Amino acid sequence: MGLLSEFDQRDRAKLGDEMHRFTADLYPICRSITGNGIRQTLKMIQDRIPLETFEVPTGTAVFDWIVPKEWNVRDAYIKGPNGQRILDFQECNLHLLNYSMPVRATMSLSALKPHLFTIPEKPDWIPYRTSYYKEDWGFCLSHNQMLALQDGEYEVCIDSTLANGYLTYGECYLPGRSTDEILISCHACHPSLANDNLSGLSVATFLAQILSGRDLRYSYRFLFIPGTIGAITWLARNRDTIGCIRHGLVLTCLGDRGPFHYKKSRQGNAEIDRATAHLLRQYSESPKILEFSPYGYDERQYCSPGFNLAVGCLMRSVWGTFPEYHTSADNLNFIHPKQLAESLGLCADIFDVLEENRRYRNLNPYCEPQLGRRNLYRSTGGGAIEAQINARLWVLNLSDGEHSLLDIAERSGHPFPLIHAAAEALQESGLLAIIPETSRGLEEESQENTAHSSGDQSCGSSSHS
Amino acid sequence: MGLLSEFDQRDRAKLGDEMHRFTADLYPICRSITGNGIRQTLKMIQDRIPLETFEVPTGTAVFDWIVPKEWNVRDAYIKGPNGQRILDFQECNLHLLNYSMPVRATMSLSALKPHLFTIPEKPDWIPYRTSYYKEDWGFCLSHNQMLALQDGEYEVCIDSTLANGYLTYGECYLPGRSTDEILISCHACHPSLANDNLSGLSVATFLAQILSGRDLRYSYRFLFIPGTIGAITWLARNRDTIGCIRHGLVLTCLGDRGPFHYKKSRQGNAEIDRATAHLLRQYSESPKILEFSPYGYDERQYCSPGFNLAVGCLMRSVWGTFPEYHTSADNLNFIHPKQLAESLGLCADIFDVLEENRRYRNLNPYCEPQLGRRNLYRSTGGGAIEAQINARLWVLNLSDGEHSLLDIAERSGHPFPLIHAAAEALQESGLLAIIPETSRGLEEESQENTAHSSGDQSCGSSSHS
Amino acid sequence: MGLLSEFDQRDRAKLGDEMHRFTADLYPICRSITGNGIRQTLKMIQDRIPLETFEVPTGTAVFDWIVPKEWNVRDAYIKGPNGQRILDFQECNLHLLNYSMPVRATMSLSALKPHLFTIPEKPDWIPYRTSYYKEDWGFCLSHNQMLALQDGEYEVCIDSTLANGYLTYGECYLPGRSTDEILISCHACHPSLANDNLSGLSVATFLAQILSGRDLRYSYRFLFIPGTIGAITWLARNRDTIGCIRHGLVLTCLGDRGPFHYKKSRQGNAEIDRATAHLLRQYSESPKILEFSPYGYDERQYCSPGFNLAVGCLMRSVWGTFPEYHTSADNLNFIHPKQLAESLGLCADIFDVLEENRRYRNLNPYCEPQLGRRNLYRSTGGGAIEAQINARLWVLNLSDGEHSLLDIAERSGHPFPLIHAAAEALQESGLLAIIPETSRGLEEESQENTAHSSGDQSCGSSSHS
Repeated sequence: MGLLSEFDQRDRAKLGDEMHRFTADLYPICRSITGNGIRQTLKMIQDRIPLETFEVPTGTAVFDWIVPKEWNVRDAYIKGPNGQRILDFQECNLHLLNYSMPVRATMSLSALKPHLFTIPEKPDWIPYRTSYYKEDWGFCLSHNQMLALQDGEYEVCIDSTLANGYLTYGECYLPGRSTDEILISCHACHPSLANDNLSGLSVATFLAQILSGRDLRYSYRFLFIPGTIGAITWLARNRDTIGCIRHGLVLTCLGDRGPFHYKKSRQGNAEIDRATAHLLRQYSESPKILEFSPYGYDERQYCSPGFNLAVGCLMRSVWGTFPEYHTSADNLNFIHPKQLAESLGLCADIFDVLEENRRYRNLNPYCEPQLGRRNLYRSTGGGAIEAQINARLWVLNLSDGEHSLLDIAERSGHPFPLIHAAAEALQESGLLAIIPETSRGLEEESQENTAHSSGDQSCGSSSHS
Repeated sequence: MGLLSEFDQRDRAKLGDEMHRFTADLYPICRSITGNGIRQTLKMIQDRIPLETFEVPTGTAVFDWIVPKEWNVRDAYIKGPNGQRILDFQECNLHLLNYSMPVRATMSLSALKPHLFTIPEKPDWIPYRTSYYKEDWGFCLSHNQMLALQDGEYEVCIDSTLANGYLTYGECYLPGRSTDEILISCHACHPSLANDNLSGLSVATFLAQILSGRDLRYSYRFLFIPGTIGAITWLARNRDTIGCIRHGLVLTCLGDRGPFHYKKSRQGNAEIDRATAHLLRQYSESPKILEFSPYGYDERQYCSPGFNLAVGCLMRSVWGTFPEYHTSADNLNFIHPKQLAESLGLCADIFDVLEENRRYRNLNPYCEPQLGRRNLYRSTGGGAIEAQINARLWVLNLSDGEHSLLDIAERSGHPFPLIHAAAEALQESGLLAIIPETSRGLEEESQENTAHSSGDQSCGSSSHS
Repeated sequence: MGLLSEFDQRDRAKLGDEMHRFTADLYPICRSITGNGIRQTLKMIQDRIPLETFEVPTGTAVFDWIVPKEWNVRDAYIKGPNGQRILDFQECNLHLLNYSMPVRATMSLSALKPHLFTIPEKPDWIPYRTSYYKEDWGFCLSHNQMLALQDGEYEVCIDSTLANGYLTYGECYLPGRSTDEILISCHACHPSLANDNLSGLSVATFLAQILSGRDLRYSYRFLFIPGTIGAITWLARNRDTIGCIRHGLVLTCLGDRGPFHYKKSRQGNAEIDRATAHLLRQYSESPKILEFSPYGYDERQYCSPGFNLAVGCLMRSVWGTFPEYHTSADNLNFIHPKQLAESLGLCADIFDVLEENRRYRNLNPYCEPQLGRRNLYRSTGGGAIEAQINARLWVLNLSDGEHSLLDIAERSGHPFPLIHAAAEALQESGLLAIIPETSRGLEEESQENTAHSSGDQSCGSSSHS
C-alpha cells in the first residue's frame, strides 16, 4: 500500500540524487514567462513524462489579462570605461533584468545607475528582478561590484527581442478511474534559481513519472507553467473542465533544509488541507500550517473567488522569508537530494490519503461485532490492546456514513495508514462496506450509475491543442 | 476619510482640554435620577448640541416599573453637639444619601449611626450611596470623620422634597441617509462623580457635536438619561422605533488612565462587537474584551431578552474594579484631557468602521485582475509588495458577496482603514461594486426600492414630545 | 433541594463506611461473565434494592454474539513436586485464569509454564487474566512465586464446568414522572478486584437505594451486568425501549484516591457530558475530561454507532493507568470509604442537575423587572450585589426559551444549584414560567398532551422476564 511503498530507503536516496541532477541540468537555462527558456525546460521534462505543450499567441485575451510579447535574449552585457565586459549575461542570467527590452547605448555611470539593482544587505549576492508588464531594462549585480564602479562611459548592450510570439506551457494528464482530478501546479518561469522553483519542477516531474501507468482512483493533472500569466492562461482556456478539480497543490521551494510549510487553500478546511495537516503532524508536533492569503504563488489564481478551488501550496522554507530567496544564493548548493526526496515522499503520502480516503458503513452498527472469532482481536483478556486493534474499534465506531477515514484518523490520533489498514481488514471480514460516492466528474468504477448525473460537465484530458 | 480626519494632534489636545472643562462645569451639580440636577445638566448639554428633552410624569407605568417621585434638595446637614455643621451638602453633594426623604430631627450618635455610610478601607474618602426605591435617609462621610464623632446630640436636617413631578431625559437625533440607527447612551444621574459618568456625558456630547450636520450613512441617537429607570422609560416610550437600532454603545468611565475595556453585547458577535474588538487590537495585543453579563450599566436593559439589541459598553477602567469608583476620589483629578480625547477618537473610529463597512462584489472574480495597468501594483517584480497592495489583493479575493470589509480586515489582519482605502481604489478602477443592502429602516439612497418593504416599522426621530 | 440534601457530613461518612463494608462482603466471590458468582452478587444487591434478575440461555444470539456457556468452579489448584498445593483457587480466585476449562493432568514445569501468567514488573502481585472466547486454561501467580518453582512433576486440577446454562444480569428500574430515563450501568463480572469494579457496584447500589421511592422527574434504570457480553445482551433484548434513554453513566473505579475522570459520550456535547463537566469544574480548575474513544467499558456498546446513546463513563483513576489495575493489589485497601461516599455524592449532584435542568421563559422580557419591590434585590444602591442576585439577573436575561439552566450556569460561571435557586425564586414571584417539554417517552405531568405523540415507542420497565 502506498505509492512509494516499493521504494526503500536506498531507493529514495537514489531518487534524491537523480532529482538533484535533474535540477542541475535545468539550472543554466534562462527562463522567463515566455520564450525559448521555458520551451527548452519543458522539452527536458518531456524526456521523462508524457507532457503535452501548448503555445498561446501573444495578444490572446485571458480574463483581465493579455498574453504578452515573447521575450528572447541572445546576449547582454555592460562594458566598463576600459572596454571590458563587467557584467555578462552569459556568465549568469540573473544579471539581466528579466524581460528587459533591447538596448544599445553608451552612458555615464550616473545615467546607468537607475538601471542597476543590488542587495545592500547581502553585498555579494546578485538579486533577481523582473519587469514583465512595464517596458524597461536593467541589470542586477552584487552590491560590492556596484560600489567598485568608476566614473566614466559605460556601453550597455541588451540583444533581446520582445515581439509577437507565444506563451508556452506544459501539461501532463494521467487519467485515473475517476475523472475527478488532482491538480499539481508549478511555475517554470524562473531563470537560474534552484529552490524557487527548480525544486518544484523536479518534484512534480518525478511524481508524474511514478504515478504514470498506475491504476489510480483520481486523475492527475500536472501543470508546468509561467507564474501568474501562465495560471491565468490555463484557467481561461480550461474553464469547462475546472469543475473536475477536487484537490490541488502548488509546489515550490521544496529542496532546502527548512521544515515543511503548508499554506491552506482559501476554503481552509478542504480535504487537501486536512490531509496535509494530518501528515505534517507526523513530522512535527507543531506543524507549520499557514492560513490562506491572496499573495504568494499560483494558488492566488486557483483560489480567486470565482474558482475557489481546493488548492494549497506546499513548501519547505517560505518564499520571501529566507535570505537566499530571489538571489544568486538560491543556487544548486542551496538544495539537497535528501530534502528533494523527502518532499517527493510527502507528496506521495498526501496522494495516498486522498486516494484511500472514503466513507465506510459499519454493517453491524449495534454494539461491537465480535472481532475475536474473526481473528481481529487478541485472545487472552485483561491486558492492553495494540494500536492495530484500537484502530479497528475506531473505524467500526465512526463508520456511520458521516465520517471518512481521514475524519477517523484525526479524531483517533492514529496515522492514516493504520486507519486505512483497519478499514481494509474489516472490509475483508465483511464487517464494513464502502459507501459509493458520486464524483463531480465521471467514475469509471460506477459508470452506469453516474454517467448521466455528471451532466454537461465534460472532464478529462484537455481537448484543445 | 474618517470622522476625525480633520483633527490633527494639536486639535485633539485642544478637544481634550475642552472636554475636561465641560466636565468641570457639570461637576458641582447634584444630579439624581429625577429633579433639577439632571434638568440643569441637560440644559448645559443643549448649549452644544440639538438636544430635545422629555418630561415623564411620576406614576407613569414603564414596563414593570413606575416612574418615581421627583427628588430635589434645598439643603442638608448634620450639626454636632457643639451646634456646628459637621456635614454639609453644600460642600459636597455626596454627603447626602441620594434620594433621601426629608428629615428634621435631633438624635443621639448611636441613633444616628445606622444612617451613616463610610468606607473603612479608604478612611479619607466619602462613599456615594443611593436609596431610590426604598424611602430612607442617610449621610455619607469619610471613615476618619465618623471615628472622630463624639457622643452627644446631633441635629439632622434634610430639606428635600420627594413629590409628584417628572423624570427628565434628553435625546439628540442626527438623521443620516438611512433610518437605521446607532444608539449612544449614557447615564446622567450621578452627582459629583467625574469618571462615572461625566466623562461619558462629555464624550457623547462632543461626538454629537462633531457628527452634527455631517452627511452620514446611519442616523445617530444620543440618549442622556438617568440610569436604569431612564433606559427603561425610554425603551417603553419608543418600542415602535427600536427596530431601527442596528448598533449601540453605552459610554461610561472614559476619562481615567486605565486601558480601554469593551463589554460585548448579549449577541456577542454583533458588528459593533467585532468592530470595537478589531480597533482595540490596535491599542493592545491582548485587548480587554469582556463577555456580556446582565449586570452593569444600561446595556442591561438594551440587552434584555425581549430587545436583545446589539449594544455594548465602552469603558476605560471597569466600574467596581478601581478603588475610586463611587467615592469622592472619582473627582476632576481622576480624569484627564488626553484620555477623554482618546476615548472620543476611539468612538469616532468605531463609527468610521460602521459607516464604511459594506460588502462589495469583485467584478473580475476569475483570477486576479491586472492591477499593474491600473497603477494599483508595483512595477518592478521580484521584491516585496507593500501593505497597500496586499490589502487590495485581500479585498479582491474576499469580495465574493459573503464578506464585509470588516470580515476582510479581520481575516487579513490589516487595519480597517487600509482595507477600506483598498476597496475605494478598486471601486474607482471599476474592479469592485458595492452590494446594496436592505436596511431595517429606510435608506434614502435607495428609497424607491425599500420604501414599501420597510413596512409598518416607522423609524426616525421620536414622534412623542 | 438535592438528592443528598438530607445527608450532612457525618451521614456521608457513615454512608462511606457502609459502602466499603458492602464491597468487603462482595469481595471474596469468584465472579465471571456467567455463573453462580454473579448470581450470588446480584442476590446480595437484591437485599438492598428492588432488583429484577434475568437468565439468558447459552446459545442465545445477541447481535453479532452468542451467549457463551456458563462457567462454574468447584476447586482449582496446582500441586508441586512435593505434593503440596502451591497455588490454590480457594485462597485467591485470581489464581485461576477466568473461564478456564476443566483440566486434570500431571506435567513437567516446562509444559506448565505456557499456562502461567505473572507481572514481572510487579513481582509480588497476581495478575487478573481471562479467556472468555477461546477455550483455554491457566493460572496467575506472582512473578516471585513462579521464579521459585523447581523442576519436577506438577499436578494440575481445574474442577470447573463450562456447560450450557445461562448468562445472568440484574436490572433495577425506578419509575419517575416521565418515562424518559437515566441509565446507570456497571459491570459485575470481575472476581476479587475492589476498585474495578466493586466500587462501581457499591455506588450504583447505594444510589438506587437513595432514589428508591422518591418523586423523580426521570425514571432510573440500573444495570448490573457482565462486561461486554452483558451490555450486548441487554441491548439486544431491549431494542424497543432504548429510545427512552436520555442520559447514561457507566460507573467504575470509584473508590481509589485518584481525582475524578469523566469520559465523554460519543456525542461529546450531550447534556450528561455538559452536566458532569460543569460539576467537575467545582472540584478542579482543570477537570479531567476525556474525549470519547471506542475502547474502555460498556460505553463501547451504548455508544456504538447504531445506538449512539448519551452515555459517558465516570471514574476516579482511569483503568489501565494505575499499576494496581487488574492485579491482586486492587484489593479492599485500595478503596476508601471517603472516596466511595464522594463518588456517590458526585453522581447525586449529576442527577440533581439533570432533574432540574429545564428551560424557563422570562415573563417580563422587556427590560429588567423590578426585583426590589419583590424583595429579590438589595435595598441600598451604590455597592456590589451578591452572587444570589447576580444569578437572578442571569436567569432573567437568558430565559428566552433558548437557554436551559445548565446553559445559564455555564455562561454565567455560577454553580448550577445557585442558578436553579434563582429560577425557583423568580418563578415563585411570577417572573418566570417553565417551558413544558416534550419527552421522548411519556411524561405523566403532561400526559394528555403527549400520550399520543409518544407513538409506538413503548418505554417503561422491561416487559420480558
